[in-house]
Amino acid sequence: MKIIIVGASGTMGSYLANALEKEHSIIRADRKSKDVQVDITSPASIENMYKTVGAFDALICTAGPTYVGPWKNLNDTTFRNGVEGKMMGQINLVLIGQHYINPNGSFTLITGALTHDPQKNFANASAANAAVDGFVRAAAIELGNGIRINAVSPTVIENSPQYFPFFPGEIPVTMQKLEFGFRKSVFGANTGQIIKPY
Amino acid sequence: MKIIIVGASGTMGSYLANALEKEHSIIRADRKSKDVQVDITSPASIENMYKTVGAFDALICTAGPTYVGPWKNLNDTTFRNGVEGKMMGQINLVLIGQHYINPNGSFTLITGALTHDPQKNFANASAANAAVDGFVRAAAIELGNGIRINAVSPTVIENSPQYFPFFPGEIPVTMQKLEFGFRKSVFGANTGQIIKPY
Ligand SMILES: NC(=O)c1ccc[n+]([C@@H]2O[C@H](COP(=O)([O-])OP(=O)(O)OC[C@H]3O[C@@H](n4cnc5c(N)ncnc54)[C@H](OP(=O)(O)O)[C@@H]3O)[C@@H](O)[C@H]2O)c1
Ligand SMILES: NC(=O)c1ccc[n+]([C@@H]2O[C@H](COP(=O)([O-])OP(=O)(O)OC[C@H]3O[C@@H](n4cnc5c(N)ncnc54)[C@H](OP(=O)(O)O)[C@@H]3O)[C@@H](O)[C@H]2O)c1
Repeated sequence: MKIIIVGASGTMGSYLANALEKEHSIIRADRKSKDVQVDITSPASIENMYKTVGAFDALICTAGPTYVGPWKNLNDTTFRNGVEGKMMGQINLVLIGQHYINPNGSFTLITGALTHDPQKNFANASAANAAVDGFVRAAAIELGNGIRINAVSPTVIENSPQYFPFFPGEIPVTMQKLEFGFRKSVFGANTGQIIKPY
Repeated sequence: MKIIIVGASGTMGSYLANALEKEHSIIRADRKSKDVQVDITSPASIENMYKTVGAFDALICTAGPTYVGPWKNLNDTTFRNGVEGKMMGQINLVLIGQHYINPNGSFTLITGALTHDPQKNFANASAANAAVDGFVRAAAIELGNGIRINAVSPTVIENSPQYFPFFPGEIPVTMQKLEFGFRKSVFGANTGQIIKPY
């Protein structure tokens, strides 16, 4: 399978790319990648990535910037980090990518448990995650050609100890379970699902 | 109680304003209202509304424009209807309004069952609704001074028969149950809840 991983240089993306490249052709994408560069906050940049890569079988996105910080600094401007990044960035990857993906291909987006389980400092992520989850359920009944779409929604992950203090009592998701979540979406037959790999 | 209803000229808003004005001081807001005008897609207009109204006890929003139409017409531009309208419009009503509302006041936003129950033509609303639901849960643990926040999330309502063909088999929510949903949020003690008045 030819699989694009957007966010491939990140904590999740690099783990997934290394795990999946043993059996699949992986195209690593992010703003500085050697394979193909993309800034998901720009629809033109997304279109350009797909034109460069050509037909593909699956897209995994683990890029999803949001504003993280004190509630008192949350306003229309700071909120745009998550709106343009994690939300519209991922939604545009699908709206544009549906015209480039092979029949029966799949999109797997990243959200997170903050959708239902808020934490202080992360309201922007709660909204952006939830928007993507809602979009995934709706897109699943609209996409043609057997194209599937799911989201993977972990809580804090094992390889991100810097976030542990913000998630008191949250049992970290192992990287192996995270990988299984993405595998379930890419290689399974489900669509419109929010996969909780824990 | 002094209650602002944003969207007061609409199907839901006019019903609620008429029902609640028997016992409360209602300020009707929308883009053409005699009481106070607001365009929720503009943070400056929202700020201006709050400055004009002064301190208040509750805000109800039933204004939430989204793009409704065929999936093939959904793109970054059409998606902005719901992003700027139902999503950021309502989120900015809270982010700005928290500085004007009385202690122990409440915000009640409008979402809808499309969050979890998608229908064709409504992917933009599914995403915007979900974003607001996620924001409501997150804002509830951040807002100070006893300020509460909830969303009311009905399916298609009795007084909107024009939508019935788009919601096959969906049992319409009566206006009375819808009103009860808003009453539960405004006059109850809950916060961070997505109220399903059916
Ligand atoms: N880490 C966790 O514990 C955890 C738990 C639940 C959910 N999540 C969510 O999972 C996602 C990934 O987390 P992570 O920890 O793997 O993040 P990360 O280590 O910060 O990696 C983010 C990746 O996305 C890329 N990226 C950032 N902005 C981009 C843009 N505008 N266009 C294209 N690529 C962009 C980055 O590369 P460049 O900056 O070079 O472009 C990088 O490859 C985030 O949305 C996060 O909210 C994380
Ligand atoms: N009707 C249903 O069956 C149903 C079911 C579930 C959820 N919902 C949701 O509930 C909400 C209200 O539905 P409705 O049927 O009552 O809508 P509606 O009859 O179209 O009324 C919308 C109201 O919002 C105002 N409005 C629109 N854009 C605005 C803006 N930018 N700034 C300020 N006010 C604005 C309108 O007045 P002006 O245009 O004069 O400003 C009007 O007062 C929508 O978000 C809808 O998605 C509806």
